[in-house]
Amino acid sequence: MRRRRLLQARMLERIERGGYEEIIPPTFEYAEVFVRAGGDEVADRLIRFLDLDGQLLALRYDFTASVARLAATKLSDRPTPLRLSYAGKVFRQDPAREGRRPREILQVGAELLGAEGAAADVEVVRLALELVRCADVREFQLNLGHAGALAAALAALAPDQRAEARRLIDRKDAAGLAAIGGGGGGGGGALQALPFVIGRREALDRAARLAPDATGAIDRLRAIDAALTDEERRHVVYDFGEVRGLDYYTGVHFEIFAAGAGAAVGAGGRYDDLVARFGRPLPAVGLALNLDALADALP
Amino acid sequence: MRRRRLLQARMLERIERGGYEEIIPPTFEYAEVFVRAGGDEVADRLIRFLDLDGQLLALRYDFTASVARLAATKLSDRPTPLRLSYAGKVFRQDPAREGRRPREILQVGAELLGAEGAAADVEVVRLALELVRCADVREFQLNLGHAGALAAALAALAPDQRAEARRLIDRKDAAGLAAIGGGGGGGGGALQALPFVIGRREALDRAARLAPDATGAIDRLRAIDAALTDEERRHVVYDFGEVRGLDYYTGVHFEIFAAGAGAAVGAGGRYDDLVARFGRPLPAVGLALNLDALADALP
Repeated sequence: MRRRRLLQARMLERIERGGYEEIIPPTFEYAEVFVRAGGDEVADRLIRFLDLDGQLLALRYDFTASVARLAATKLSDRPTPLRLSYAGKVFRQDPAREGRRPREILQVGAELLGAEGAAADVEVVRLALELVRCADVREFQLNLGHAGALAAALAALAPDQRAEARRLIDRKDAAGLAAIGGGGGGGGGALQALPFVIGRREALDRAARLAPDATGAIDRLRAIDAALTDEERRHVVYDFGEVRGLDYYTGVHFEIFAAGAGAAVGAGGRYDDLVARFGRPLPAVGLALNLDALADALP
Repeated sequence: MRRRRLLQARMLERIERGGYEEIIPPTFEYAEVFVRAGGDEVADRLIRFLDLDGQLLALRYDFTASVARLAATKLSDRPTPLRLSYAGKVFRQDPAREGRRPREILQVGAELLGAEGAAADVEVVRLALELVRCADVREFQLNLGHAGALAAALAALAPDQRAEARRLIDRKDAAGLAAIGGGGGGGGGALQALPFVIGRREALDRAARLAPDATGAIDRLRAIDAALTDEERRHVVYDFGEVRGLDYYTGVHFEIFAAGAGAAVGAGGRYDDLVARFGRPLPAVGLALNLDALADALP
């Protein structure tokens, strides 16, 4: 517990030095806020209760939904870019794991709102790397993808096939993807090959050859790669097979893995459509660290 | 928010220097835990929800219930005295204030378990005073009472009269108390006069004259008074009219008030019966500060 508290303080201090202002969003919101941000899948995972007016509230499922709401409402007069940080718990239940009590996960995070360029992506990826490094995690890796890479190939599918394709990508089921790809449009080649592309800078060249439609996404990843230092690049792997969170992310997205941790120690990405759902069109990119997983990864 | 974060860090650091070990109780418990600790009145104020097994959970209503449960279960092999501290939010709804969302209150607290003497009371009162002082609150006052002072007088009443007597004491309704006192046993004089006794050390002498049955309680307060320094004593007022929390406290109890704060900035007391309700008889005394109220009191 002491370790988590120290980690939290150190992370927040580092984020603050980057110009991020700490906010403390409420522990619960109207349930609708989390569903508006995260979609119907989130609805089943919320811990919901009624207030005395009969309004349906939910415990904080993630911070990003609250930050988006605040950025669009209370903080709507703030000039951009807006750099916000937070620390606290998120609460989730997993309908697939019956008999379990809801989970509490301690997070620290940062969101950069109002900046759409590669420089903002670099700032957040760099911050993520620095935070994990300053937690004294030695072996760690940031898997960086881009939601746009498979967008054309997925858009060419019928909606029900699209959901199935994602499940197959998540399971890395090449045969299943080949069967679906045959029925799809021109992006079939990308759908079958791109999810298996993972590696250092050269993976970007392979991806470009396999998915000519994905130039925008791959160029953005190249720009990020060029901006990183050698030391930073040592921890970055380009990964086109990550499809979780694709309803949410509109650009780069990443997960951070550390030796010894049972779950990803961090995740983040660009979500340019989200703040607009609360009334203020604002591109945004952010990260969150899972301090429970991070504490597990420490020696 | 920054101010609350700094306050929390400073308070925890000070508590830790006193030998208290920080624990992080879960954000929710089975609702029954809070009701077992706090009684039926608490049930209406809980924010409750069902887990996937259909068990009724509740958001943390107070830390003391969780600390008592942990001390009696997970920490049952720890030697006493056991010094535990915590920081985080408690969640309450007020049935009398309809149309309001539930409240979140940020607390920091400490519990000393397994010590029944006046020295333990002094340790906690002293810690409370130091915490408020090191928060840079200049004008503050700790109102110190003892649950035993009115115990004999209240025990002499019929149960329904007892509840009514407390309401009258809380409202400082002398006429109402006189009417009830007439019907009661020998403690009638104490019931009518004691709730109006408030003051420095001399109030203890007045109380002793008014309530000969309350010698034990008053002697304990005298022992505490004798142990305090002049500087500490400057902030302490003996108050026999405080009846809130009497279901809970078995000995000394206090509230701390600060100029500029809309609510008590802290409270605490001795609750020797509580841990036993979770299976381990263990005297205990503790304190909790309300950081939201405390932040309001700062210049």
